[in-house]
Amino acid sequence: MRMPKITTLEDLLVDELKDLFDAENQLTKALPKMAKAATAEELKAAFQEHLEVTKQQIERLRQVFDELGKPARGTKCEAMKGLITESQELMSEDIEPEILDAGLIGAAQKVEHYEIAGYGTAREIAARLGHKAAARLLDETLKEEENTDKKLTQIAKKVVNVRAAGVGQEEETEEEE
Amino acid sequence: MRMPKITTLEDLLVDELKDLFDAENQLTKALPKMAKAATAEELKAAFQEHLEVTKQQIERLRQVFDELGKPARGTKCEAMKGLITESQELMSEDIEPEILDAGLIGAAQKVEHYEIAGYGTAREIAARLGHKAAARLLDETLKEEENTDKKLTQIAKKVVNVRAAGVGQEEETEEEE
Repeated sequence: MRMPKITTLEDLLVDELKDLFDAENQLTKALPKMAKAATAEELKAAFQEHLEVTKQQIERLRQVFDELGKPARGTKCEAMKGLITESQELMSEDIEPEILDAGLIGAAQKVEHYEIAGYGTAREIAARLGHKAAARLLDETLKEEENTDKKLTQIAKKVVNVRAAGVGQEEETEEEE
Repeated sequence: MRMPKITTLEDLLVDELKDLFDAENQLTKALPKMAKAATAEELKAAFQEHLEVTKQQIERLRQVFDELGKPARGTKCEAMKGLITESQELMSEDIEPEILDAGLIGAAQKVEHYEIAGYGTAREIAARLGHKAAARLLDETLKEEENTDKKLTQIAKKVVNVRAAGVGQEEETEEEE
C-alpha cells in the first residue's frame, strides 16, 4: 500500500537511497553464505572483506539520509532480491568447486554493477541538487564498488583454472588479434 | 524441475548465455513501454533505438549458441525480472514527467550494468575456453552496452532540468573541489 508521490528530484533521490539501503542490507545477509560456499581462500577472504565494507557503506548511507534530513529507511529492492536468488540457485546446484567459484564471482560482479549504477545515479542527482556532502559520501562508496568489481576480475583470472575444471583444452590467455 | 548439472566452465558459460538470452528477451518487452512513458524526445528515441540494438544482440547471442553447438534457449532471469519490476513501479507512480525521465534513465542504467557484468563474465569464460569467435561476438555486445550506459548519462545531463522540476535551487554543475 505504499504510495509515495514523487514530484521532485529530491524525492527521486530519496527513493534511490531507500532502494540502495535495502539492497545493501540484503547483501549483508547473502555475503556470509557466499564466503562459506567459496572454495578459493582468496575469494572467501574477498567476500568476508566486502561484508565489512558493505556494513560501512550502510553507515555512510545513514549519513547521507542525515544530510538530507530524512529517516534512514529501505524499500524492498526487487532487483537485489533477484540477484541474490540467482546466486542461491547457483549454490544449490550440483557443481564442481572451481566452477562454483567462477559462478560466484560472476554473481558478485552483477551485484557490484547494480550498485555502481544506483550510486552513480544517486551521486549525480545529489550533486545536481547542491547536496555536496551527500554527493561526496555517495562518490566514496561508488569508488569502493568499482574497485571491488576490478578486484573480482583479478581474482577470477587467478582462481579459475581451466585444467582444474577438467575441460582439457589449452588455456587461452593471449589477447585477441 | 530444472536440474542442470554444472560440472565444467563450458556449462557455466552456457548457463550465463541462457540468462542473458532471457534477460534480453524480457527487455524487448519492457523497452517499448519505457519509450512510451518517456517525456523527452531524445530519451524516447534512445529507448526505441536501444530496442533495435537489443534485437540485434539477441541474434548475436543465437550466433554464440551456434558457435558452441548448443540450442539457443533462455532460463528465467530473476534479476532482470526485478529490474523491470522497478521500472514498472516507477511508471505506475504519480510522478512529474521530468522526474519520471530521470527515474527511467536510472532504471535503464541498472539494466545496462546488469548486462555489462553478464557479458563481461561470458566473454572472459569464452576467451578462457578458446572460443574465439564467441568471445568476439560477446565483446561486441559488451561494447554496445557500455556505450548505451554512457549515452544515457549524457541524456540525463541534458534532459533532467532542475528548474523544470520546481525544486527552486541553483543548479550545481561545477566539479567538486
